[in-house]
Amino acid sequence: MLSGLSDLRVVLVSTRNPLNIGAAARAMSNFGAQRLRVVNPYEPSFREARSAVGAASVLADAEEFASVGEAVADCRLVVGTTAAGRRELRHPLRTLEAGGRLIRKHLTVGPVALLFGSEKIGLSNTDLSHCDWLMRIPTRPEHGSMNLGQAVAVCLYELVRSAKVERTSGKNQLPEAQDLERITQLLFGVLRSSGYVKPRLAAATEENIRRMVRRLDLNAVDAEVWLGMLRQIAWKLENGALGS
Amino acid sequence: MLSGLSDLRVVLVSTRNPLNIGAAARAMSNFGAQRLRVVNPYEPSFREARSAVGAASVLADAEEFASVGEAVADCRLVVGTTAAGRRELRHPLRTLEAGGRLIRKHLTVGPVALLFGSEKIGLSNTDLSHCDWLMRIPTRPEHGSMNLGQAVAVCLYELVRSAKVERTSGKNQLPEAQDLERITQLLFGVLRSSGYVKPRLAAATEENIRRMVRRLDLNAVDAEVWLGMLRQIAWKLENGALGS
Repeated sequence: MLSGLSDLRVVLVSTRNPLNIGAAARAMSNFGAQRLRVVNPYEPSFREARSAVGAASVLADAEEFASVGEAVADCRLVVGTTAAGRRELRHPLRTLEAGGRLIRKHLTVGPVALLFGSEKIGLSNTDLSHCDWLMRIPTRPEHGSMNLGQAVAVCLYELVRSAKVERTSGKNQLPEAQDLERITQLLFGVLRSSGYVKPRLAAATEENIRRMVRRLDLNAVDAEVWLGMLRQIAWKLENGALGS
Repeated sequence: MLSGLSDLRVVLVSTRNPLNIGAAARAMSNFGAQRLRVVNPYEPSFREARSAVGAASVLADAEEFASVGEAVADCRLVVGTTAAGRRELRHPLRTLEAGGRLIRKHLTVGPVALLFGSEKIGLSNTDLSHCDWLMRIPTRPEHGSMNLGQAVAVCLYELVRSAKVERTSGKNQLPEAQDLERITQLLFGVLRSSGYVKPRLAAATEENIRRMVRRLDLNAVDAEVWLGMLRQIAWKLENGALGS
């Protein structure tokens, strides 16, 4: 009955306090989400967190990753969470309610990653550059920052709340995050060979490109086509003088 | 903006762990509820709970009572919370969603008490006898019992949820068709120079690319960026051997 979250990956990025990882696992178990992913936890011993009451299996099965890119590689939609009040965001920002609807729809066709940043600073700009869009929990602007375990609980509640099964046609399949990352890397390489990327700004440019590629909202078929086009352009830029 | 919860009293009954009281206070502050009431807390020193990050005033202003009856005496509606799966209940049981709607309605006319029981046993039958009805958070029957702070957060989220107006960004201006056509032509030229376009299929490929560029759904700002990137790639492909 409360399934529907079996394809959700809850991704905790750079979490400081292992008790918060345990608390997140407990909320996941309460609401029927089983797949926890942990990126660079501060305490490697998080699997013993006593706060995971009744959720030992979620913690035991948690997967560890060294980077956000690897943690979301097999997901077709990557959503970041944020407190109210960050104004510099260059991503589409959805309310938890509207975002939850979209996530539920995507969960009927493939894996979705839901990212939570560290207790102090949330998701970094690099983390955010992996996200398709962001979701905001409607906390007060004067006190936006939630406890991590509570934030996870609220988001998962929203996802199961109106667990009406929504069906979507299989033909609007989304690309996996790793395909979008390949497009990002190919495009970045092509732009570097072309002299578009200022060496001093390379890191920022790469993040901008990653964000822009995600804003394209490619479907899986078009993503393949873009990969093919960019590979050909990259090849030509490397071997140009010889072939022409 | 997120007021509306000023007449809500969050009532924690027989809480064992003072950290849970602090966590509840933090969630209250996040969602704009200020009136905490504590009945027979196990640790009288709960006001120092470090988990009340950013919510020191909620804890400081918390009122202590010796019984549920006293704690809810001035309220016009008293609602108990419960995990799924308790079968012996003799009270009307509402989903959090339906109950939340009713509570919001009552909050416009007077104080409402929302009761949370102790970590181990929840609300006792005596506690329940003070309630008008009960509200159930939709956790899994196999693992119904939530962390107290998380349960408070989820309930308060539901209460503020639909009081929100969705923000849409005004900078979602669309590019002019002529910009999309410029992108199409530049991309087509780059792909032709790269050997991607089979001469025999050039016309069909051009159409496919035009359609694909339109599917990107670019906004006006991103369209400019793509134009710049493609111009640079095209320039490099033409002048590559000389420049490199």
